[in-house]
Amino acid sequence: MGTDKLESGLGFHYYNADEVIGGKKMRDWLRFSVAYWHTFDQRLIDNFGDGTAVRPYDKYSDPMDLALAKVDYAFEFYDKLGVDFFAFHDRDLAPEGDTLRETNANLDKVVDRIVEYQKTTGKKVLWNTSNMFSNPRFVSGAATSPFADVFAYSAAQIKHSLEVGKRVGSENYVFWGGREGYESLWNTDMKLEQSHAAKLFHMAKDYANEIGFDAQFMLEPKPKEPMTHQYDFDAATTMNFLKEYDLDKDFKLNLEGNHANLAGHTYQHEIRVAREAGMLGSLDANEGDKLIGWDIDEFPSNLYESVAAMTEVVEEGQIGPHGGLNFDSKPRRSSFEANDLFYSHIVGMDTFAAGLRVALKMKEDKVLDNVVADRYSSYDKGIGADIESGKAGLAELEAYSIDKTQKDVRDATHSDHLEQVKDTINHYIIDALK
Amino acid sequence: MGTDKLESGLGFHYYNADEVIGGKKMRDWLRFSVAYWHTFDQRLIDNFGDGTAVRPYDKYSDPMDLALAKVDYAFEFYDKLGVDFFAFHDRDLAPEGDTLRETNANLDKVVDRIVEYQKTTGKKVLWNTSNMFSNPRFVSGAATSPFADVFAYSAAQIKHSLEVGKRVGSENYVFWGGREGYESLWNTDMKLEQSHAAKLFHMAKDYANEIGFDAQFMLEPKPKEPMTHQYDFDAATTMNFLKEYDLDKDFKLNLEGNHANLAGHTYQHEIRVAREAGMLGSLDANEGDKLIGWDIDEFPSNLYESVAAMTEVVEEGQIGPHGGLNFDSKPRRSSFEANDLFYSHIVGMDTFAAGLRVALKMKEDKVLDNVVADRYSSYDKGIGADIESGKAGLAELEAYSIDKTQKDVRDATHSDHLEQVKDTINHYIIDALK
Amino acid sequence: MGTDKLESGLGFHYYNADEVIGGKKMRDWLRFSVAYWHTFDQRLIDNFGDGTAVRPYDKYSDPMDLALAKVDYAFEFYDKLGVDFFAFHDRDLAPEGDTLRETNANLDKVVDRIVEYQKTTGKKVLWNTSNMFSNPRFVSGAATSPFADVFAYSAAQIKHSLEVGKRVGSENYVFWGGREGYESLWNTDMKLEQSHAAKLFHMAKDYANEIGFDAQFMLEPKPKEPMTHQYDFDAATTMNFLKEYDLDKDFKLNLEGNHANLAGHTYQHEIRVAREAGMLGSLDANEGDKLIGWDIDEFPSNLYESVAAMTEVVEEGQIGPHGGLNFDSKPRRSSFEANDLFYSHIVGMDTFAAGLRVALKMKEDKVLDNVVADRYSSYDKGIGADIESGKAGLAELEAYSIDKTQKDVRDATHSDHLEQVKDTINHYIIDALK
Amino acid sequence: MGTDKLESGLGFHYYNADEVIGGKKMRDWLRFSVAYWHTFDQRLIDNFGDGTAVRPYDKYSDPMDLALAKVDYAFEFYDKLGVDFFAFHDRDLAPEGDTLRETNANLDKVVDRIVEYQKTTGKKVLWNTSNMFSNPRFVSGAATSPFADVFAYSAAQIKHSLEVGKRVGSENYVFWGGREGYESLWNTDMKLEQSHAAKLFHMAKDYANEIGFDAQFMLEPKPKEPMTHQYDFDAATTMNFLKEYDLDKDFKLNLEGNHANLAGHTYQHEIRVAREAGMLGSLDANEGDKLIGWDIDEFPSNLYESVAAMTEVVEEGQIGPHGGLNFDSKPRRSSFEANDLFYSHIVGMDTFAAGLRVALKMKEDKVLDNVVADRYSSYDKGIGADIESGKAGLAELEAYSIDKTQKDVRDATHSDHLEQVKDTINHYIIDALK
Repeated sequence: MGTDKLESGLGFHYYNADEVIGGKKMRDWLRFSVAYWHTFDQRLIDNFGDGTAVRPYDKYSDPMDLALAKVDYAFEFYDKLGVDFFAFHDRDLAPEGDTLRETNANLDKVVDRIVEYQKTTGKKVLWNTSNMFSNPRFVSGAATSPFADVFAYSAAQIKHSLEVGKRVGSENYVFWGGREGYESLWNTDMKLEQSHAAKLFHMAKDYANEIGFDAQFMLEPKPKEPMTHQYDFDAATTMNFLKEYDLDKDFKLNLEGNHANLAGHTYQHEIRVAREAGMLGSLDANEGDKLIGWDIDEFPSNLYESVAAMTEVVEEGQIGPHGGLNFDSKPRRSSFEANDLFYSHIVGMDTFAAGLRVALKMKEDKVLDNVVADRYSSYDKGIGADIESGKAGLAELEAYSIDKTQKDVRDATHSDHLEQVKDTINHYIIDALK
Repeated sequence: MGTDKLESGLGFHYYNADEVIGGKKMRDWLRFSVAYWHTFDQRLIDNFGDGTAVRPYDKYSDPMDLALAKVDYAFEFYDKLGVDFFAFHDRDLAPEGDTLRETNANLDKVVDRIVEYQKTTGKKVLWNTSNMFSNPRFVSGAATSPFADVFAYSAAQIKHSLEVGKRVGSENYVFWGGREGYESLWNTDMKLEQSHAAKLFHMAKDYANEIGFDAQFMLEPKPKEPMTHQYDFDAATTMNFLKEYDLDKDFKLNLEGNHANLAGHTYQHEIRVAREAGMLGSLDANEGDKLIGWDIDEFPSNLYESVAAMTEVVEEGQIGPHGGLNFDSKPRRSSFEANDLFYSHIVGMDTFAAGLRVALKMKEDKVLDNVVADRYSSYDKGIGADIESGKAGLAELEAYSIDKTQKDVRDATHSDHLEQVKDTINHYIIDALK
Repeated sequence: MGTDKLESGLGFHYYNADEVIGGKKMRDWLRFSVAYWHTFDQRLIDNFGDGTAVRPYDKYSDPMDLALAKVDYAFEFYDKLGVDFFAFHDRDLAPEGDTLRETNANLDKVVDRIVEYQKTTGKKVLWNTSNMFSNPRFVSGAATSPFADVFAYSAAQIKHSLEVGKRVGSENYVFWGGREGYESLWNTDMKLEQSHAAKLFHMAKDYANEIGFDAQFMLEPKPKEPMTHQYDFDAATTMNFLKEYDLDKDFKLNLEGNHANLAGHTYQHEIRVAREAGMLGSLDANEGDKLIGWDIDEFPSNLYESVAAMTEVVEEGQIGPHGGLNFDSKPRRSSFEANDLFYSHIVGMDTFAAGLRVALKMKEDKVLDNVVADRYSSYDKGIGADIESGKAGLAELEAYSIDKTQKDVRDATHSDHLEQVKDTINHYIIDALK
Repeated sequence: MGTDKLESGLGFHYYNADEVIGGKKMRDWLRFSVAYWHTFDQRLIDNFGDGTAVRPYDKYSDPMDLALAKVDYAFEFYDKLGVDFFAFHDRDLAPEGDTLRETNANLDKVVDRIVEYQKTTGKKVLWNTSNMFSNPRFVSGAATSPFADVFAYSAAQIKHSLEVGKRVGSENYVFWGGREGYESLWNTDMKLEQSHAAKLFHMAKDYANEIGFDAQFMLEPKPKEPMTHQYDFDAATTMNFLKEYDLDKDFKLNLEGNHANLAGHTYQHEIRVAREAGMLGSLDANEGDKLIGWDIDEFPSNLYESVAAMTEVVEEGQIGPHGGLNFDSKPRRSSFEANDLFYSHIVGMDTFAAGLRVALKMKEDKVLDNVVADRYSSYDKGIGADIESGKAGLAELEAYSIDKTQKDVRDATHSDHLEQVKDTINHYIIDALK
């Protein structure tokens, strides 16, 4: 099988699963998860080309045989790679039947096998989710569809997906927009669509409570693609929605690097926004090409990106309460051999492990803590402290400022020497990894 | 003076101030406002070039003489153009002194003259605001500055700005980010900076209440430029901030077309988001070049953009409770003569007047109302009505869907014929304007 | 069939095929062409969703039956729509066999039927081309592939494609990048790949000459997607390549609006660049969404875009020597019914017909001719004429300029009143179309 | 003075000027140059803010005193930093007078002092250029201006600039678009403007030959900003222009990282394009923020970028025949102290020195050479060799391919394992710099 090559010497440079660093095992800091869809289902198609992937289970022609063979391969893969978690959409696992009843039956058979493997291997589900965007019925969305029958179908599909989540013990349950009714504003009732989405989220949460499925619920922001616009544009937009519909206590955010870039943000920015609001749920580990305007879901290899992301995780102390690093990543279409699945996961895992090492070293040395503490130190005393305490209002601040000269105020500012900070980070990368 | 040419035949094609249309005079639908900064202060500089503007008041060398001459010119301009409103930053009007006390004195002298003119002409202030981004003291923001003395100075400046707003009877008071402490996340305490901004907004609102200045307060979203990131990225992000800091009852949004594009949105999207949340305050009328990554603040001339914006305004019944169309727009640098200020306002006003005519005609004919009503009609009855009413929960929807075939559900969807909708809009543009 | 609806009243507003305008029939100005791939093959898939298209020939399960049924439908469609041209890739027409010999045989059978239809209908082929990007063998390009066997296969495929072109009497033959070896520079020999492409273009041209296939050859620029980079980035880049490899006499350019935008240009810019270099070959009529970073190939409906494109065509007197307007356009995925193919072609044809009417009216009135003549008039006499004639060199120009004051030179410039120009264009759109 | 701090311990980690590496001293590989404009003239303004820079020579109020004091500071700076080269625009050095004669006189005085310093210090001029974009006379370009008097003035200005170049012994002479007549295509005669530019380039080259100024002439591509479009969009576009106007023998390219990104390219791409065409002239060392749509000219600190650029330089054996790394870079506006000029140059120099070390190590180990040789090895023998030699034409390649099965051809392709390549580069960065 395609996993044989793994034994021929390929290995990690920075990831050492059981090494304790910063008070925890690396595996517990990073909680790596393999994404079923990109790893086992993705044929490496693109808009102009058929799938190039060569996989060990290509020989199976019966859809259910194929689905079960993929489970076998997946657990062998998790084991050889040494990851503890995986994630899936319902439709990744098993083929659709002509009715939802048949589809659920197909799915249940595959879940049976997964549950068996879980017992013997201890592998855990980081999160599961529902695919409500591929089938043509979802042409204009699922919960946000203009067609009530599609809303109904989505609700029914989610019900079963929550039951599956409970069976496999998912630590989280994720929703992402994928597709909405919003292709053009001219024919879209945005408020109605959003209220429908909120309605379904409430129903889902209520049902999870009812059946005792206590996963953390999450939304995953993405600004656009395949549609012109998705409602969960970025972290802040999604939090606004959650507040508006009284869902902010029940949901956290699952954030992806490539999605952050498509919204005009760095990944670090999105993590920071969620973290500071207490809404950091989990992370999708991939990267985009910032010169490209669509989602490429590339396996992460950029150390600056992983250092930035892990700096936020170190600050939080964890990746959300139940979060992990899920590889929502695919090899390039020209890396079509099965071995590339190993190579690409290894570069991804090593990149994030390296990021963790650098971030922890900077934290230990208080590098950024000192930069920040120094930069805002004027709020620790004098007029700054009076501002913080509320003692100084407009009138007091006017009295304080009214006769200061231009130079006086200018002298209260100082350079932040940002170039030095960037230089320092470069040296930490080299020093922590050599 | 440069206004002479106006009398030589230039005129409006679509704007007829006192024509009653859709139940209101055009002037009351559109509430056009001239922006002091771009019209009277902007020298048409760019990052690579000195100002090219030729203005009638260029002959004044003393800063206060110049400031007063600009007021004379401005009121002549408002009169000849036939607009009812104008808008300004404090620093647009008068030069800074070495202290805030001196600066305030300069400003008060100019405001005296403005108030005199207001009495005789009836011209109103759509909104005023504070310039807290040009002076080097604001290098890292104003309320979000890491330097407490800059926060103090900003508070003092805003205090006087609110007093000025009361004197001139501003209908709104606007804040826009302009500049923040956030150039790089590595040295930024985002949460602290945002809490400082919220603190100043609360102080400002409290003081306005104290002095009986009852203007509508507004924030103006913009995603970036001049900084890497601004906190008020777009409408949704700004609303999230307002909710977070308990400011959402006191503030609405002032939205700009070019800013919308920089955030990856259409202008219509931003207006819709604000409108449906009851947060539409006012509009900055300009347009960008979507192939360009910076704010060009071009005078609007694109009919599609104005039709889209005015469609939202017609739906709202007005541009926010006290809003208007403020021309945050400048002529191209190659349109440097004073007459170009007239030409460019005329094309801008005519473009929005045309947009209003088209939007009202489409509303009268229920064009979009019918498209939308039809598209979502499945929620009016049967299972759709049960979803809306809350009668159908997950279990009911599963029962409803579980045995439907793929074809059954597919048949419940239909094409939205979006191409036809776009064709229809083209014809409404031609027909409403011919 | 799905074409029935056409008879139920849908019609053109601006396109009147046999109306003589600007000295030619509209059909001869516009030479509309239906693209086989988007119209008859495209299932309206996207990266996240299966095809939604509902087509009259969906009932055929045998690939060759389907291929032949599509031909029947296509010619019925051309007829009802009233277009004179169509365009296709080899693989649009017929399914691949296991060998090229079998594939060619499949293709020939379908071409036989096309040729029959051509005899009775007079419909012409604007251009044909080869699909050398979909099959996994082209994972890293065709002529630019790192694998010699793929180059060989591509050469063989093109040979037959040229023979097909001759049989159907294609007026042009097009190549577009589609896919190259260039996914990352780290492993790419760019110069070798480009020399291979040039080599294949020379072989193809030589063979066309050999068999007496006298179509105009064209390259079609596109900057990226599906790959990171395509060699024919834009018009200027492609012309540079053609010059470098001595192909500029044998090739012209086929330009697409959406591709122009992805390269950071307006469509008008690309057409102008090609036109002024004598390299304008043909036009792909579609439009993108400038806020979106991928190719959406939307049916054109924006009048500004069509006026700009047709202004260049009017200036050229034609769309290249053998060019036409080929609809490389697809309906939105939510416009999935067969009738939408009619609606969307009609909006596209009407939009370009409207653009033609406006452009001709502006030409007739010398609107832009006068603007340009006036703007550059200083080169018609005095020092300007001396510059043009070569009479004035650096020394003469220094003597002319050395003692002029800042004001002297400044006074030789004047405002271009660009806002007025844009206003004028708006009025021409309304007036020419009412 | 502001240079004192340099002695207090700040130092290089990777740059060691006289260390021999890859057969040359580092100083000769890198040929660092300080840009007069950003380092000594730039006040750190932006479109929304006044200059924040604090400089030791701010005390001089007379423009000529200031200009001369800057020279003193500049040479002290070069010395302390240990760079061998500098670069300037004419207008960086001295203030304009009211006529070009007066302006030239001002400039000559400053050049006198520079020449004196050169004698004693040996510092060399990497390139000089003319600023023909800041003064309002250049509102619509210089050589491309619609106004003949502006063309004449530009020619006169360049004449003197070439004479200055000869006096200071510039190794190169650079032109960059900066500003053109092209703000909108509606009023632009693109072909005429480009012919004017070509005319001036020919005049300039002829005059340089006449006076024996043998600098390498260069154009500097940039796609846009401040204007909508610049003619020298990117490397390929510029080469096309040079070929079109018979200038390709006399000019090479000066390439900038941030400009590359604005054109949608990586910096490495632009260098590769120029290098493979024999057109690599020199490099502007800065970096942009790919999430930002304007030129930020940030000091380089990203090791991936510097490794990529230096990989091309190592491949070329040098940075063009007379090229160097010129810091067309400025500190962030919040790094406004004079010391930041040192810090920022040091991070920039160290980043490129590190890039050189990594690139040389990879070259020594043939890392990329092997990847590329292996990837294209099928062209070394068999059918590949026949393609290269021209022995195989379409007919031979058809015979070779016609009966191969899909699998046959597929098997001739192989995965390029791009993820492994990226992993390898990461490890080379760490290993070469530790």
